[in-house]
Amino acid sequence: MAVAFSKRMELLKASEIREILKITQREEMISFAGGLPAPELFPIEEMKRISVAVLEEAGKEALQYSTTEGFEPLREKISKRMNQKFKTNVSLNNIIITCGSQQALDLSGKIFLDEGDIVLCESPTYLAAISAFKAYQCQFIEVPTDSDGMITSELEEIIEKTERIKLIYVIPDFQNPTGKTWSIKRRQEFMKIISKYEIPVIEDNPYGELRFEGDFPPSLQSMDNKGLVIFTSTFSKTFCPAMRIGWIAAAPEFIRKYVLVKQGADLCTSLKSQMEISKFIDLYNFDEHVKRLVALYRKRRDVMVKALEENLPQGTEFTRPQGGLFLWVELPRHINASELLKECLRNNVAFVPGESFFPNGGGINTLRLNYSNMPEKVIRKGIESLSKVIYKFLM
Amino acid sequence: MAVAFSKRMELLKASEIREILKITQREEMISFAGGLPAPELFPIEEMKRISVAVLEEAGKEALQYSTTEGFEPLREKISKRMNQKFKTNVSLNNIIITCGSQQALDLSGKIFLDEGDIVLCESPTYLAAISAFKAYQCQFIEVPTDSDGMITSELEEIIEKTERIKLIYVIPDFQNPTGKTWSIKRRQEFMKIISKYEIPVIEDNPYGELRFEGDFPPSLQSMDNKGLVIFTSTFSKTFCPAMRIGWIAAAPEFIRKYVLVKQGADLCTSLKSQMEISKFIDLYNFDEHVKRLVALYRKRRDVMVKALEENLPQGTEFTRPQGGLFLWVELPRHINASELLKECLRNNVAFVPGESFFPNGGGINTLRLNYSNMPEKVIRKGIESLSKVIYKFLM
Repeated sequence: MAVAFSKRMELLKASEIREILKITQREEMISFAGGLPAPELFPIEEMKRISVAVLEEAGKEALQYSTTEGFEPLREKISKRMNQKFKTNVSLNNIIITCGSQQALDLSGKIFLDEGDIVLCESPTYLAAISAFKAYQCQFIEVPTDSDGMITSELEEIIEKTERIKLIYVIPDFQNPTGKTWSIKRRQEFMKIISKYEIPVIEDNPYGELRFEGDFPPSLQSMDNKGLVIFTSTFSKTFCPAMRIGWIAAAPEFIRKYVLVKQGADLCTSLKSQMEISKFIDLYNFDEHVKRLVALYRKRRDVMVKALEENLPQGTEFTRPQGGLFLWVELPRHINASELLKECLRNNVAFVPGESFFPNGGGINTLRLNYSNMPEKVIRKGIESLSKVIYKFLM
Repeated sequence: MAVAFSKRMELLKASEIREILKITQREEMISFAGGLPAPELFPIEEMKRISVAVLEEAGKEALQYSTTEGFEPLREKISKRMNQKFKTNVSLNNIIITCGSQQALDLSGKIFLDEGDIVLCESPTYLAAISAFKAYQCQFIEVPTDSDGMITSELEEIIEKTERIKLIYVIPDFQNPTGKTWSIKRRQEFMKIISKYEIPVIEDNPYGELRFEGDFPPSLQSMDNKGLVIFTSTFSKTFCPAMRIGWIAAAPEFIRKYVLVKQGADLCTSLKSQMEISKFIDLYNFDEHVKRLVALYRKRRDVMVKALEENLPQGTEFTRPQGGLFLWVELPRHINASELLKECLRNNVAFVPGESFFPNGGGINTLRLNYSNMPEKVIRKGIESLSKVIYKFLM
């Protein structure tokens, strides 16, 4: 008898891209690769005050084990904020706190997926959702997606002819990786289909509050009258990633299952971190804080879009997101973005090749660019370098 | 098509005990149920200083996303401390930081276990390890255990006649729930068998540093020359639970797998929390801090043992642990500890019935008592009440 890993480990290979991107930590590198918030706007001074306040007011409680569901006052605040921003109708009993919204995806896989089950997703979709679900040995069917979101006629056709669809995973607001937002009409059509076929939906919404222009569209969950939509979000983008505070908002029947699996996964999320965010919301104006982020990211998006317009060769398309962290570039068909990346890294520019976002392969000529993490001057310089390399590949 | 959960969810039922124990949060309740550290010794003042120091010195970095492996200086400190205390021979490359040691168990299930695989464990064993592994649809075989630890002749017999043993899970130091510590001889015999059959072992060691008397025995990992022992521990008991900082120390081949599955599970552990513990170790004397815990818990163990000796009826046995948080009581065979609990709760005393610690059932007449969380006077009072109820059940 020798060491044998589980079968799922054959599906989970170390990402070649991740290895390549390790070198993006070099000082001189301009990285459009990660999904990192701007550290300039981390509320460091405020954090100092709230850390001390939480320890002084509730240190013994804050540092102890806590409930798996999470800190009630924070769950209350989250539910109110969701109802206000995303037109949902949830209370604290619909909320479980998770270790970032990534844990929400992992726990969802655990709750819903057996080997061979089918997950429907947008094409392309979020890289780390693919790896979270793949660990439960599911298959993915990518539903064709246009600038209005998932194409609902195609969705219905797939549902009609496919067995064992257990979950539909979507990111309707400022999608990762494309930056696209679903139209209201598409949301309505989508929810009509969901209501008809009664399939659980994960509405992943980490970026929705980072809207640069236009009104908030209603969330899918706000149009759900059957309790099928599981909404997940996080404070990683609106506050800071190191808090590792995300959440799931769903029907109590689902929440009970999430509590069960979270107990086995990590017992509870840090009460101290939950109290800190709750205290921040008490002491400061969260809306104002988000406004500052939006203003900065809007500017950076503008700079990147302008630089792309001025520098990219003809035949190269890109999205112009109304919010979020990413935009998406489609190169002429014969250019391989992974090869392009290697050359770009030699020129100190990094991005993520789009291929990683297609669970069943494809998208060789696409790439994702992040605009939230780099200052404007650096964005301009980086896009110039990137464009030069693309020109080289055109020849 | 209606909502269908994964098959594993049928195995994961909400614990009846957990529901019962919810009422232990009542103010007047004397709870020996949880595994909670003493909040009186949480380093609250020190935490205030280190939180501010980390934010001032490295705020932008501390609040950002970080590597899945964890903060290198902390991994370095952990490896040195392990080598000193547990006679291991590890470096930072053997360490991955986890969200408490509970996550180490969940990730281990993910890496090793397919449906129907066998996990060997002590009988009884840690409740939440059972639920972590069960989520991967394994079966448990409990290896008979005496006061020296797992009975190695029985272990070898089971290994010889059993297919698909993927993992052996043990807690050799101050076991949860029994408080027992394996003898050195038993450790040697165990590792001889492991080396012969080459089965991965999880050596779960959250309590090892909380030793009240006697020398530290060598860890299983220190006797392992084939890289089969995966050591896990946590700062939850020696620092505080809300940091949610645990770790795995293992061969790099295993660590690479853990990194892969942790990426999908939660991306990374809070860098801020990791930096805070690292800073605590820099600014304060961690050994002195542990000494204070040990002094307090030793006293509380003494008080509980004395109270049990004075109050328990004849025919009731209990362990006298040399460290850790728990002791284990065996009642006369005809007493059902779950029934006893109901009556105890009416008298404002709580414990965990032992049955929960036997993955395949049994141990109806056993119970686990925690002595770390309650002050001495309260321990005395609680044991007196408990004993009175036991007397009632004897009649």
